[in-house]
Amino acid sequence: MPTVTAALLVLALTATSQEVLDGAPPSAWRPLDDERTLYLELPAGRVVIELAPQFAPRHVANVKALARGRYWDGLVILRAQDNYVVQWGDPDDETPGKARPLGTAEAKLPAEFTRAAAGLPFTRLPDTDGWAPEVGFSDGFAVGREGAAGAAWLAHCYGLVGAGRDNPPDSSNGASLYVVIGQSPRHLDRNITTVGRVVQGMELLSVMARGPAPMGFYEQPGLGTAIKAVRVAADVPAAERTRLELFRTDGAAWDALVETRRNRREGWYQRPAGHADLCGLAVPVRPTPAVAPAPAR
Amino acid sequence: MPTVTAALLVLALTATSQEVLDGAPPSAWRPLDDERTLYLELPAGRVVIELAPQFAPRHVANVKALARGRYWDGLVILRAQDNYVVQWGDPDDETPGKARPLGTAEAKLPAEFTRAAAGLPFTRLPDTDGWAPEVGFSDGFAVGREGAAGAAWLAHCYGLVGAGRDNPPDSSNGASLYVVIGQSPRHLDRNITTVGRVVQGMELLSVMARGPAPMGFYEQPGLGTAIKAVRVAADVPAAERTRLELFRTDGAAWDALVETRRNRREGWYQRPAGHADLCGLAVPVRPTPAVAPAPAR
Repeated sequence: MPTVTAALLVLALTATSQEVLDGAPPSAWRPLDDERTLYLELPAGRVVIELAPQFAPRHVANVKALARGRYWDGLVILRAQDNYVVQWGDPDDETPGKARPLGTAEAKLPAEFTRAAAGLPFTRLPDTDGWAPEVGFSDGFAVGREGAAGAAWLAHCYGLVGAGRDNPPDSSNGASLYVVIGQSPRHLDRNITTVGRVVQGMELLSVMARGPAPMGFYEQPGLGTAIKAVRVAADVPAAERTRLELFRTDGAAWDALVETRRNRREGWYQRPAGHADLCGLAVPVRPTPAVAPAPAR
Repeated sequence: MPTVTAALLVLALTATSQEVLDGAPPSAWRPLDDERTLYLELPAGRVVIELAPQFAPRHVANVKALARGRYWDGLVILRAQDNYVVQWGDPDDETPGKARPLGTAEAKLPAEFTRAAAGLPFTRLPDTDGWAPEVGFSDGFAVGREGAAGAAWLAHCYGLVGAGRDNPPDSSNGASLYVVIGQSPRHLDRNITTVGRVVQGMELLSVMARGPAPMGFYEQPGLGTAIKAVRVAADVPAAERTRLELFRTDGAAWDALVETRRNRREGWYQRPAGHADLCGLAVPVRPTPAVAPAPAR
């Protein structure tokens, strides 16, 4: 639709982010895929995670198998380190006889730190990044890459979900997961397997009392927030699912939105930055709009 | 001390951050200045703020006058917006008859968004930054500048403290203050007056329940955390002060520490980044070491 595209690009030169969102067509939004969505159910509410099988197929398959085996239900948040991560898993996972059974999930997986950029959608950002030769977005995920023929990986931005590991690169299997709750720890990029990102409910994780022990661990596991359940959205009764749409990170509407973040036009700003950084660009999320009922005959 | 310097630089090529800190001489640390330190006393404990009069002399003088007039005592945290800021002040400050009196503080101040770089200590970081031509540290503060002959300003990193304003650039007076609790909102740089940074107690602010109203405001001011008191450290009885030392951000020990963050040597890392970003470099803080008693005669 060249008319819409041209209008959006012109608008972006003088518009605010809100104006771009208000003016974007329905096609600028996409629904969450319930088979690629995980619900972390906490006493305070639901955290919605979009999984990234395109970056870590083995780990994401394992995470889904663990959720379907109710592996995490009744466990607790083990760690909340200020300006860094919240993490959960089985505190006894290395204790024979006490470790929770993995069910149909695999105990050992290869590291999935990066993948080939070839075949991956990629909308490059116009600005420089110190951590990667190129940065941009791929189906909503903040991504670094070495070029179209090199490697690509998820960037450690606010809300990223990764698979905790010990020193061996292949020591993660997805049973222990962490979420970034502070300044983007991009030094972790390409050093660990990443499996998704939180699209709703970050404020339930970010407020958790920080653990007093080193690295934010609670001194006793019982001090951490309880995990009621972790479920694949597709397994939850349809009426109980969280219906969300995400702003697409390709096309003219996205380009227009990025430009409104690079140079803010709201009246408050005195000096547009002429820059946006990868982890400063939140992808908009909204409840799926209700379908208008057909008019009565 | 060229011997120490050389040893630190060699060490940095293979060392971890902990090894650099352990090997740093006492002169690599400096004490907090009690006349430039503010205590925000919350029910859960004390937040320690280092003020930056070198960047905003008028606002910092006003903040100290407000603290000395007990302006904030008994007020509450008004706003906690996820991945952005916590903010406090008088919710009635624009209501004649209800606004708290400012005492000896000034109601109107000029904007202090930037200052001249001339005369400001500056240790430049080796890596690029998309938001400023040059970035580095100045007496512990993360700073952007246009070059030695241009402007300099505080960068909006985690823990930065600024003075809230309305649309007019000169509409802040320091009576409403905010603290960055998420991904560095560097687009605010050079758009607002900044007055200091939190050096201890961030975890008391970052865990506050996020407000449900737009921009993280609580729907009723009574829902926010109470402020017991705000004091200039020098006004607090000596025995009740928090004695801290900060790692100096100039000299060989700092250079060595930065290198250990650019290229991490801990056994966990598979791939050193060769990069550190301004807001990812936390300046180490420690309790002031006890002075060893003189030996008995």
